[in-house]
Amino acid sequence: MKGLVYGGPGAREWAEIPDPVIADPRDAIIRVDAVTICGTDLHILGGDVPEVAAGRVLGHEAVGTVVETGGGVAALAEGDRVLASCISACGVCRYCRQGAYGQCLGGGGWILGHLVDGVQSEYARIPYADLSTYKLPDQVTDEAAVLLADILPTSYEVGVLNGQVRPGDTVAIVGAGPIGLAAVLTARLYSPAHIVVIDKAETRLQAAKLFGADTTVTAGTQDPLAAVQALTGGLGADVVIEAVGVPDTFELCTTLVRPGGRVANIGVHGKPATLHLEDLWIRNVTITTGLVDTFSTPRLLDMLVAGQLDAGPMITHRFGFGDFMHAYDVFADAAHTGALKVVVSR
Amino acid sequence: MKGLVYGGPGAREWAEIPDPVIADPRDAIIRVDAVTICGTDLHILGGDVPEVAAGRVLGHEAVGTVVETGGGVAALAEGDRVLASCISACGVCRYCRQGAYGQCLGGGGWILGHLVDGVQSEYARIPYADLSTYKLPDQVTDEAAVLLADILPTSYEVGVLNGQVRPGDTVAIVGAGPIGLAAVLTARLYSPAHIVVIDKAETRLQAAKLFGADTTVTAGTQDPLAAVQALTGGLGADVVIEAVGVPDTFELCTTLVRPGGRVANIGVHGKPATLHLEDLWIRNVTITTGLVDTFSTPRLLDMLVAGQLDAGPMITHRFGFGDFMHAYDVFADAAHTGALKVVVSR
Amino acid sequence: MKGLVYGGPGAREWAEIPDPVIADPRDAIIRVDAVTICGTDLHILGGDVPEVAAGRVLGHEAVGTVVETGGGVAALAEGDRVLASCISACGVCRYCRQGAYGQCLGGGGWILGHLVDGVQSEYARIPYADLSTYKLPDQVTDEAAVLLADILPTSYEVGVLNGQVRPGDTVAIVGAGPIGLAAVLTARLYSPAHIVVIDKAETRLQAAKLFGADTTVTAGTQDPLAAVQALTGGLGADVVIEAVGVPDTFELCTTLVRPGGRVANIGVHGKPATLHLEDLWIRNVTITTGLVDTFSTPRLLDMLVAGQLDAGPMITHRFGFGDFMHAYDVFADAAHTGALKVVVSR
Amino acid sequence: MKGLVYGGPGAREWAEIPDPVIADPRDAIIRVDAVTICGTDLHILGGDVPEVAAGRVLGHEAVGTVVETGGGVAALAEGDRVLASCISACGVCRYCRQGAYGQCLGGGGWILGHLVDGVQSEYARIPYADLSTYKLPDQVTDEAAVLLADILPTSYEVGVLNGQVRPGDTVAIVGAGPIGLAAVLTARLYSPAHIVVIDKAETRLQAAKLFGADTTVTAGTQDPLAAVQALTGGLGADVVIEAVGVPDTFELCTTLVRPGGRVANIGVHGKPATLHLEDLWIRNVTITTGLVDTFSTPRLLDMLVAGQLDAGPMITHRFGFGDFMHAYDVFADAAHTGALKVVVSR
Repeated sequence: MKGLVYGGPGAREWAEIPDPVIADPRDAIIRVDAVTICGTDLHILGGDVPEVAAGRVLGHEAVGTVVETGGGVAALAEGDRVLASCISACGVCRYCRQGAYGQCLGGGGWILGHLVDGVQSEYARIPYADLSTYKLPDQVTDEAAVLLADILPTSYEVGVLNGQVRPGDTVAIVGAGPIGLAAVLTARLYSPAHIVVIDKAETRLQAAKLFGADTTVTAGTQDPLAAVQALTGGLGADVVIEAVGVPDTFELCTTLVRPGGRVANIGVHGKPATLHLEDLWIRNVTITTGLVDTFSTPRLLDMLVAGQLDAGPMITHRFGFGDFMHAYDVFADAAHTGALKVVVSR
Repeated sequence: MKGLVYGGPGAREWAEIPDPVIADPRDAIIRVDAVTICGTDLHILGGDVPEVAAGRVLGHEAVGTVVETGGGVAALAEGDRVLASCISACGVCRYCRQGAYGQCLGGGGWILGHLVDGVQSEYARIPYADLSTYKLPDQVTDEAAVLLADILPTSYEVGVLNGQVRPGDTVAIVGAGPIGLAAVLTARLYSPAHIVVIDKAETRLQAAKLFGADTTVTAGTQDPLAAVQALTGGLGADVVIEAVGVPDTFELCTTLVRPGGRVANIGVHGKPATLHLEDLWIRNVTITTGLVDTFSTPRLLDMLVAGQLDAGPMITHRFGFGDFMHAYDVFADAAHTGALKVVVSR
Repeated sequence: MKGLVYGGPGAREWAEIPDPVIADPRDAIIRVDAVTICGTDLHILGGDVPEVAAGRVLGHEAVGTVVETGGGVAALAEGDRVLASCISACGVCRYCRQGAYGQCLGGGGWILGHLVDGVQSEYARIPYADLSTYKLPDQVTDEAAVLLADILPTSYEVGVLNGQVRPGDTVAIVGAGPIGLAAVLTARLYSPAHIVVIDKAETRLQAAKLFGADTTVTAGTQDPLAAVQALTGGLGADVVIEAVGVPDTFELCTTLVRPGGRVANIGVHGKPATLHLEDLWIRNVTITTGLVDTFSTPRLLDMLVAGQLDAGPMITHRFGFGDFMHAYDVFADAAHTGALKVVVSR
Repeated sequence: MKGLVYGGPGAREWAEIPDPVIADPRDAIIRVDAVTICGTDLHILGGDVPEVAAGRVLGHEAVGTVVETGGGVAALAEGDRVLASCISACGVCRYCRQGAYGQCLGGGGWILGHLVDGVQSEYARIPYADLSTYKLPDQVTDEAAVLLADILPTSYEVGVLNGQVRPGDTVAIVGAGPIGLAAVLTARLYSPAHIVVIDKAETRLQAAKLFGADTTVTAGTQDPLAAVQALTGGLGADVVIEAVGVPDTFELCTTLVRPGGRVANIGVHGKPATLHLEDLWIRNVTITTGLVDTFSTPRLLDMLVAGQLDAGPMITHRFGFGDFMHAYDVFADAAHTGALKVVVSR
C-alpha cells in the first residue's frame, strides 16, 4: 500500500510501504477513508519533534472502515465505520480510568504518527482500538467526522473547558489559525457575551467572524488590550485562549485576563515564556496547559449528529490520496493558499 | 398614590394608598416604570400563601427610577434607572456572603409583595437597595429588563444551573408555562443537543419551539418517556426540569432522567410527592430544589446587552397602570388569552 | 471446590460446586484468600433481590490471588495478589469511560454474587478483570484490603463525595450500621466541624464515636433535629447521609438538612418515600442517590498504604472457610453478636 | 494614642498619633486587643511596596473590641469582640458579590496598613466594618483568632483550595516559613496521603513535621524531585504549593507537579519567573495565583471553635504594646530568633 512517510527533517514521500498487521490483541486495522493534516505534522517535518524517527508514517486524524480486529477487541467488528482519534488509550492506567487519555501511562496517548505509524496511508493499525476509535452514525460524513479526530476536541477541552467559558463571559482568543477558529466555534457553545479574536491575518479574522467572533483585532495595527478593556469596563477578559504557541502571544494573554480570570493555553510551545508573577501573584489568575484527552469526542459527535456543531466551513481544500504530496504543499503554504483544514480522501 | 392591594383570598383592588417612605437607612424609594405579574401572585390571590396579609401591595418584579435613598445606601443615586429584583439581600449574613440571597437570614430573601409591600404600585420602597437593585444601561428597555426580575434568573439558576446543563445534553422540560419557556431559552445558552418540552397545551408547545425546543410532547396524547428514550438510545434525559409544581409532574421527571442524570425542580409545590427510592437508589440521580438567589442577574444583564438573550417574545400583553385590574384578568385567564407575561407600564 | 450457594429465599449452603473457568478473554480466575459478607447478601437471602437465581454463589467482596487469565487480560499475571471489587467494568461503554462503573452498559456493574457467581467460594471467576481488580502492595493486609471491595468506596463516593462534605461542615449520619460507620470514617477525611450520628443501638453509637463522631443521638429517646440545630445555630446540617434504607429515616434526613444543604442517600430502599416538596421546594436542597462506582478505590488504597485510613476496628469477627455458615449466622444476628464486618479467610 | 508608623524605607516608630475617627457611615472604630506582624510588613519596610506612604500606620491583622460604629453599620454594636480581617469588602461590587473580596472594586481589598492606616495601634478605623470584621465567640482566644486575620485564610484559600487538595493526594509545599507551615496545617484538613515540605532551615522543617508534614527535604542538600518521585511512583505531586516568592522556587514547583496536577502560588513575587512551556504545554498543568479573599474566614472560625484547627504552636513570641519595636526586631530576625508568628497584645 501507499503512505506518507517522514524521511527526516524536511523530507516526506507518498511511498509504497508494507500493509499493517495486528501486533497486539487490542489492535484493529482500518482502511483509511479520509484523513487531514495537522500543524503538528508540519512541526515534525520542521524537525521540532525529534522523537519521530525517519521512516515513520505520519498522521493522527482519520476516518476509516474496520477490516480486521485482534482477539482482545470487544466493541468493533469488520465493516464498522469509525473515527480514529489522535489519542490512543490503554483504558487501564490511572490516567485512562479518569478519562485523561492524553496522559496514558500504558502505552497510549499521542502515539499515532509519532511513536508508531500513523494514518496518512491506505490502511492503518490502530492500537487499543476499543477506546481509540468511535463508531460513526450513517448521517455523519467523513469530512465532518475527521475534524473530531483532533482539532475540535483539542479546542474544546484544552481551550474552552479548561478556560471554563460560561454564558455571558468575554472570551479573548489569541491566534486565528485552525485551532483558534475551532476555539471560536466551540466557545460559542457556551454563549459568551463577546468573543474577541486577535491575529495578524485579515483573512483569518474574517473567518473568525464567520465562526462566531463578534470583535476582531489586527495584531500589530490595533491594541488588543484596549479592545478587551473597552468591552469589559476596563477589567479584562474572563477567559483568554492562547492558540499560537510562542512566548509573545502567551505573555499577551496574561495581560488580557481580568483578575480572577483564566488563561487556557492550547499552543504548542518550543521555548519558555516569561511569567510576570510580580504582577500576577495578586490577580487570582489561573493558567492551564494541556494535550487533548479526547474524553469529549462522544459528546461532540452527539452535537454534530444533532446539528449543533458545524465545523464544515473549516475545510477549505479537498484532495485524493494520489495528490497527498500536493495537499501538504497547499496546507504548508496557508498564507497564500488560505488553507485552514485540508481533507485527503480515498 | 395607587397600588394593587391584596384583600384576602380572591380579593384585589387598584386602590389609593399612602406613598412609601424610607424606613431603614438601606432603603430606596423608586418610581415604578414597569412591572409584571407572576404566577405566584395568582397563588397568593388563591389563598395558597397565608403569610401574605390582607392590605399588602403585591408584586416583586419591577423596573423603576430612584427618587430617594436612605443614608446607608452607597451605590445608588436619585435618577438611577434600576431593576428591582424579586429577591432582597442584607449582604452580611452567611447566605448573602455566598450569593445565596434567596436564603438571606438578615431580613431579605423574597419579601417584596410577600412580607412587605411590593412593587405593583406607582412608587415602592426597596429594602437593602444596594444589593437588591441593578442599574440599567440606557440600551436596555424596561420590558427586556423586567423579565430579569424573576423569571429569567429563576429558570436559569434553579433550572439550568442546578440541572448542570452542558453542551450536547438532552434536556427534558416538563411544563411550558412562562417559567418552562424561560427554561428553554436559558438552557439553549448551553447548546444542548436536544430540548424536549412536555405540556398539555398545543399553543404553549408551539411557543416552546419558538424559544428553542426541538421536540415537543403533548401530555395525555403522547408518551413522554418514549419520546425521551427515542432521542437517547433508551437511556433517558441528562437533565429534567420540573416547571409545573404538582406531584404527578415531579414523579414523571424522576422517570425521564437517565442513570447519573439530574432533576431540577423549579415548580412551586403545595403537596408532597412520592419519591420512588426503590427504583432510584441505584440510579445515581441528583434532585435539586430552589428558590432563586438572583446571583446571576448581572450576568444575564450582560448577555441581554450583548444581544445574546432575547426574552422579548415572552411578553404577550401590555397595559397601562390604569388597566392593572384588567391585566390581572388577562394573565389569570391564560388558557383563553394566550398570555405568557403581561407588562404593566406607567 | 466449595462455595456459599444461595438456594432461594432463606436457603444457603456451603456446598461442593464446580471450579470456575475462563468464559471470556477478559476474565481472570482468582484463588479467594479472604471475603466478607454484606448486608446486601442478607437482603438476597430475605428474597428481596429476585433477580438472584437459586444456585448462585453469593459474595461481591474479596481479596485473592490470580491463578489464570484470559487472552484479553493485559494488566494481570498469575500470582498477582488483588482486590476483587464489588463492581465490574467493561471499560468501553459511555459510563465506564467516565468512571461511572456502577452504571456499566457493557455487562458490568454489580454482577458478582448477583447476576453471575460471586466470590464466597474457594476460587472465583472475575469478569473484566483488568478494570475490576486492583493489585495490592505487600504491606496491605487481606483484612484491610477487603474493606475496599464495597463498604469503604460506597460510603465515600455515595455518602461523602455525593454529599460534598467540606472542612468545617456539620454532617449528620442517620444509621450506624457498618455503612454508616464507614461514612463516619470517610467523612472525617474532610475534617468536618461536627459529625452527628443517629441510631437506636447504643453499642453502634459508641462505635460511631470511635470512628470519629463527636455527637450521637439515640433515636426514639433523643430528638435528632434538636441535636443538629443546637450545633448549627438552628440552621440544620450542611450534609445529611442516609445509611438505613427505609422511608422514615429518609424523611428524617430531609428535615435535618439546612437550606442549601445536601442529602446523600446510601441506603438500599425497597419502598417509596414521601418527599415533602411543599417544604423543600424553597429550601435549595440537593438529594443524591447512588450505587457505588468504585472509581475511588485506587485513591482509598493509596490512603490505606499511607496510614491515613484505618478501618480495621470495623472487623469484629473472623472465621475460616469451613465456618462459613456460622459466619453468616453471626453477621445476621448483629443485634446480639455486635458484629460489624466479619471476615472469612482461607 | 500610640501606633506603629512607617517612616519610609527602613524607618518605623512606635509613635504618638491622633485617635481614629469615623470617616464613612460604614466605618467602625475598634480598640485593638491583639495584633500580629506579617512578612508583608517587612516587605513594606524594605521599600518593596512603594504605594505605602510615609506616615502610614502599618498592620492588617487584629483582634479588637468595637467602640464606635457609623450610621451605615448594621451588624456590629459597641462592645462586640471582633476579628479585623486583612481584607476589607465594599459588599456591592461585582467581586464582592462573588465573595472575591480581595479584588474589591469599591474601595476595599487589601487596604489596611497599605492604602489607609492599619491596625498596629491602640485604636483603629475599620472601613466597611460589616463585611470586614467577624464576631468572635467567647471561647476563642485573641491569639487563636488573630491567626485568622491573614495567614490561615491565605494558606487555605490561595494554597489548599486553589490547589484543590483532596484526600489521598501527595502535596509538596516549597517553603516552610509561617505561610508554608499554615499551608501544611490547612492541607491536612483534606487528609492527603503525603505532605512533603522543602526548605533550607532544619528548624522550620521540624516545625513542618509538627504541623503535619510526613516528609521533609533540605533544599541544597537533598533532591526535592527525587523525594517527590519516590512517593509517587515517579509521577510527581498532585498539588505543589509555592510559599516563598522567588523565581527559583516557583520554577522548582513546576518541575515537581505530575501531569494533570496543580501548582498553587501563595508567594509574593517581586520578579518575573521563567515558565517552561516547552515542557509544560503537554502536561495538563494548572497554575494559580492569588491574593486572599477571606471568604473562608467564617468557616475557619467554625473549625477553630469545634477544635478542628489548632494553629497555636505557630505563635512563638508574645509582647506587650510597649515592646512593639522589639517585636519587629525579633520577627525580622527569624533566622536567629526562630520566630514564626509574634503576637503583640494590649
